[in-house]
Amino acid sequence: MSFLRGSENYVWCTTSVLGKGATGAVFQGVNKNNGEPVAVKTFNQLSHMRPHDVQMREFEVLKKVKHENIVKLLAIEEEQEGRGKVIVMELCTGGSLFNILDDPENTYGLQEHEFLLVLEHLTAGMKHLRDNNLVHRDLKPGNIMKYINEDGTTTYKLTDFGAARELQEEEQFVSLYGTEEYLHPDMYERAVLRKPVGKSFGATVDLWSIGVTLYHVATGQLPFRPYGGRRNKETMFYITTKKASGVIAGTQTTENGPIDWARDLPSHCQLSVGLRKLVTPLLAGLLEVDPHRIWTFEKFFSEVQITTSTTPVHVFHVNKAASIKVFLKPDEKYEHLQTYICEQTSVVAESQILLYKDQLMQTVVDDNTLGKEYPETTAEEPLILFNKNNNNVSMAPEPDVPKFPVFPNIVSVENDASQAKTACSVGHVIKRRVEALCAASVLCGACVARWTALLGARLARVAARAQQLLQHAHLAHTAARALDLAPGAGAGAGESWAAVAGLVAAEAGSLRAAAAALLQRHAAPALRAEFDAAARLAPCPSELRLHVKAKTLVDRLRDSWQHLVRDRATRSLTYNDEQFHVLERITVAETARRARALLQRAAPLARARADAIADWYKVAQTVYLQTQILDKDVSSAELKLLTLAARIQDAEHSLRHQLSEQAVVNSSKADTGGENTREAGGNGQRSTGAGAVGARGAGLRALLAAHGDLAATVRAHSATLAHLADLAAQLQP
Amino acid sequence: MSFLRGSENYVWCTTSVLGKGATGAVFQGVNKNNGEPVAVKTFNQLSHMRPHDVQMREFEVLKKVKHENIVKLLAIEEEQEGRGKVIVMELCTGGSLFNILDDPENTYGLQEHEFLLVLEHLTAGMKHLRDNNLVHRDLKPGNIMKYINEDGTTTYKLTDFGAARELQEEEQFVSLYGTEEYLHPDMYERAVLRKPVGKSFGATVDLWSIGVTLYHVATGQLPFRPYGGRRNKETMFYITTKKASGVIAGTQTTENGPIDWARDLPSHCQLSVGLRKLVTPLLAGLLEVDPHRIWTFEKFFSEVQITTSTTPVHVFHVNKAASIKVFLKPDEKYEHLQTYICEQTSVVAESQILLYKDQLMQTVVDDNTLGKEYPETTAEEPLILFNKNNNNVSMAPEPDVPKFPVFPNIVSVENDASQAKTACSVGHVIKRRVEALCAASVLCGACVARWTALLGARLARVAARAQQLLQHAHLAHTAARALDLAPGAGAGAGESWAAVAGLVAAEAGSLRAAAAALLQRHAAPALRAEFDAAARLAPCPSELRLHVKAKTLVDRLRDSWQHLVRDRATRSLTYNDEQFHVLERITVAETARRARALLQRAAPLARARADAIADWYKVAQTVYLQTQILDKDVSSAELKLLTLAARIQDAEHSLRHQLSEQAVVNSSKADTGGENTREAGGNGQRSTGAGAVGARGAGLRALLAAHGDLAATVRAHSATLAHLADLAAQLQP
Repeated sequence: MSFLRGSENYVWCTTSVLGKGATGAVFQGVNKNNGEPVAVKTFNQLSHMRPHDVQMREFEVLKKVKHENIVKLLAIEEEQEGRGKVIVMELCTGGSLFNILDDPENTYGLQEHEFLLVLEHLTAGMKHLRDNNLVHRDLKPGNIMKYINEDGTTTYKLTDFGAARELQEEEQFVSLYGTEEYLHPDMYERAVLRKPVGKSFGATVDLWSIGVTLYHVATGQLPFRPYGGRRNKETMFYITTKKASGVIAGTQTTENGPIDWARDLPSHCQLSVGLRKLVTPLLAGLLEVDPHRIWTFEKFFSEVQITTSTTPVHVFHVNKAASIKVFLKPDEKYEHLQTYICEQTSVVAESQILLYKDQLMQTVVDDNTLGKEYPETTAEEPLILFNKNNNNVSMAPEPDVPKFPVFPNIVSVENDASQAKTACSVGHVIKRRVEALCAASVLCGACVARWTALLGARLARVAARAQQLLQHAHLAHTAARALDLAPGAGAGAGESWAAVAGLVAAEAGSLRAAAAALLQRHAAPALRAEFDAAARLAPCPSELRLHVKAKTLVDRLRDSWQHLVRDRATRSLTYNDEQFHVLERITVAETARRARALLQRAAPLARARADAIADWYKVAQTVYLQTQILDKDVSSAELKLLTLAARIQDAEHSLRHQLSEQAVVNSSKADTGGENTREAGGNGQRSTGAGAVGARGAGLRALLAAHGDLAATVRAHSATLAHLADLAAQLQP
Repeated sequence: MSFLRGSENYVWCTTSVLGKGATGAVFQGVNKNNGEPVAVKTFNQLSHMRPHDVQMREFEVLKKVKHENIVKLLAIEEEQEGRGKVIVMELCTGGSLFNILDDPENTYGLQEHEFLLVLEHLTAGMKHLRDNNLVHRDLKPGNIMKYINEDGTTTYKLTDFGAARELQEEEQFVSLYGTEEYLHPDMYERAVLRKPVGKSFGATVDLWSIGVTLYHVATGQLPFRPYGGRRNKETMFYITTKKASGVIAGTQTTENGPIDWARDLPSHCQLSVGLRKLVTPLLAGLLEVDPHRIWTFEKFFSEVQITTSTTPVHVFHVNKAASIKVFLKPDEKYEHLQTYICEQTSVVAESQILLYKDQLMQTVVDDNTLGKEYPETTAEEPLILFNKNNNNVSMAPEPDVPKFPVFPNIVSVENDASQAKTACSVGHVIKRRVEALCAASVLCGACVARWTALLGARLARVAARAQQLLQHAHLAHTAARALDLAPGAGAGAGESWAAVAGLVAAEAGSLRAAAAALLQRHAAPALRAEFDAAARLAPCPSELRLHVKAKTLVDRLRDSWQHLVRDRATRSLTYNDEQFHVLERITVAETARRARALLQRAAPLARARADAIADWYKVAQTVYLQTQILDKDVSSAELKLLTLAARIQDAEHSLRHQLSEQAVVNSSKADTGGENTREAGGNGQRSTGAGAVGARGAGLRALLAAHGDLAATVRAHSATLAHLADLAAQLQP
């Protein structure tokens, strides 16, 4: 008997089953012309007993849909030897979401980025169906395939249109299809409980199935779980129909016991707190039995559209050494960011200092920058959040990690495989926890480096400003003394200009000294050293590669699990195989012990690094405050200096005016004596001077304007005066 | 019959063979107590017929060695049922170097970093043997194991001490062991050609084997290859003994044909040109048959020590859009870096502009920084090399890629597997080439970004200097006009001080205008735009993820190869299997076609990006030169200004001196009239002024000194004058 089957262009082997259903099976096949792998759906006898138009419906639906989030139809061909039509589709090598959720890696739901992909792709596929007036009627994880593109990216695609049909606008269908856990309560009542209900079902029943599917994808478990599972159909119906609006899960944990209702996702779910805030209302909107409150397709599409177009902002909260994530909608702004951060960290907006790379976040975005224009952040390169008014650092207590199962003494090929699978689930939880601890430790180091760089730059800047202030004060002092040379040009109250300028120069001098001292004591390397000294006692778990070790241990657990799964498939083991089966149980137990030990090693190391930050943080905060005070003092001295400069300017102006009047007087008596010749020469010079008065006023305006220009150009300024210094050095004796 | 074997603490299955040799086999086993996998070496009947002391030797050697680069002995136990002793060792899950070199990925030798690991670890293991007076005598890729550590890192380890023995210093052994291709010619002569040679063999014969092994690891092929291979023993002996010093390979490609001698590694080898320069002399030193020229162990260890302690410096040569690598020895300096770069790029030291991240490399290291202190560079983050005197950009012509094999029409399970393997080898070459093209394209973008940032910063800096020059010139002008107010204080040659200062201010003004114009025309975004416009026409092959696509295609080729290898193992195929075998051949051909097409798509895209750089480069170079000229002009104007400032200072000083002498004269006639009261008041003021003269001199010195200080602090300076500008704005009417 041959396992080989074929059609005109395709060939497949009946041993390569991808899936089986009531009406047929799907096999992996190959295109005879180019060797491309494909999926081939064949139909069995039962399916051929359906009415002809029902049989044709799947083909017609498939021909009608064409979208990257729907599995592509490649051909409909006749199987050889008259076995009927087959559907040839692109092969989704990632398997179905059902298989993916069944993997112990996903026991507690998919990772956030994968969940978001499913949400986006599933919705886009659904929208295409809706745009073509089609209902799927059997949405569930098993009918959502993972296609791995040639460029390594993932696309989720809807498949199995065996239950789908066309629907005219507002038409309601009465046929019954679907997979019971994912079925809308009304359909469940009729199809599963077999009660004749007078209701017809709108296309929106697909929405309920999407809700159950998304809950399953987000958490790894079904939302409505009666005690005893599928067989407890009455309780299932009770849970889904009696649940209040906003409730997204109902669980019965004892026979005939009460239902635990939940309005939030369970804590073990892998989604960030930020994303849960967006997803929970979505689930509540979909899992809504009340026809008056139920979401429309349009509402669903637009809400998902908003969720998937948010900009995720990764934030490392230093005071907790914890990573959080907030989601900015496209038109939200800085104030929203601050609010969301406050929601998750309790750090009020006024106390938030946010660093993006080596800069304050506020130099990168302003109050009106839209969320969609925000720079990209990642888990590895997040914003760093400091609390201006709190320098305590303490990590949250270690979250509970589920316990590894213990193998019973009696060997059972059936039970051992599932025990090993549970061990893998726990192993994955531990691995993720160790990874999080390693990441937090790395970010502790990064936050020291960045904050130190920023503080160093601020400190250098205020020191440079103080230096420049002193330089300008010296220049003013020079001008003041020149002015004192002129007769009758006192600064008022019997003071010389030089004395007034001297005071300002002295203040500038002391500010410069203070800045220099602060800079010397707390330059970037010194600040880093504070942390390095404390961190030296606690090696970084990431540098010890504990996260890679965790992965190695989990891979080992998975190998053992696979071994035990193969043993289970064999059913009865030979003596040899049984020996190795027992050894594999030992390996699982030993590997589990080591994984637990690894976590117990990583957690205190990560805590020690958070403690190392705490010491450094206190010093850094002090420097930050001192720099801020110095900054204000320099600003106020600058104001004094500018006022003085203006007064000197005025005095020079009026003196010049006085002299030029005197020159006119002298000029009128020019003939009276030779004694005045020198004066006249002076006068000639002074008329140049008089011309210069106007130029002088312009000069002052230019000088003042220059401050403005300078502020603009100087932003990108550095190392400007190295040449000047060289030249000055050459000029000095 | 049971396949299960065991000893006190270990159990293994005779179906899990890791390797087989003349005297026994190695199996994968398990520790009964903790499930840890191990390697178990058992001995066969033949081995037990050897003299007892020879049998014991391996155990003794193993007990003596203890080093991380030698496979660890876990236990020597008695096998159950009196089958004799077994050696239990740690399991090296990466297999042997023989297996690794056999993989089509390594047909042309290992990647550079892996080669360096082998070199370092092999040498460290050898050193440990040498330190313990042991010779291995059977060094070859099959006896070098890859151990994958729990933290994911790799350690290579020597194994199989079946041929090893202890050797007293300078003792020479006469026994004969080893694997013929790796055997020293003298030993080859005796053992393979079975000629009685009067020679005894020093422990240095291990060095020859290391040389052959390293050549094999570096190139994927043996260095000495007579036509017909192993069976052509006389030619083999001829090649190895007649080769000249410095020759590292000899190949005979036709029967009785001439030998192609080579002193360099073949071009297909994956090592960088920089590393080849270090490795070639090493190989020449090891593959030396002349006893007078042969390297000592000590020479070998120290040379490897130098090679493995070099700092690799990755450089992206913009003019060729090509990545190169040079190796700095620990005590080499900048001049060596320049020389090495010149060797590979022909860019002479004076023309090299090297960028490290956004800075000139010379701001990160100085001429005396030692190689071992150089900052880390990677292939992704290399130094970027511009040629100051050449702005042409042209990629080297596409290197030859071997052709994919074509399956003959006749299906042959034997031949098809090896054809598929060759296809995989070619696929890997194409994949690496596409990766290199993608990497080069990404680096083209990076070099634009970095160079633009640097140019922008330089431009801003010269503009800020010009601005500051103008500001200082205005202040000097103010002082000059104040001086002109005093009687008899001309600047000489009938000129007023204000006129002289005015000229300087005018020059400063025009420089500032030139800088502002340059800045406006070529600010960073404008410079980027030049590249972006050209690049828009050529999408980056990396953004198109062509490198990932190449990987997908190679993975597909490997899957097909594995399928055909399984078919070969089956020997006779069923009808079904044969159909799929044929389809797999079609898949290989189709995948090969697509891989070739991918490379043909990637190469022109990468070239287009290199061309896009060329246009931008010309503009950038012009801006660079204009900035440099402006910089010099500003420096010379600064010199003029400082000279003027000094002259004003002197004039003020002498004027003050004059006035103070006049005051003494006035003071001596103080009693002669009331008219002098006001003068006396003036005098009081002037004596304050006289005190100020000293202070003034000090002030000038402080001012000049301040230029020096300023140059230092200003290096980290930015946005300093924003406040001052605000205050100035407030003061303006």
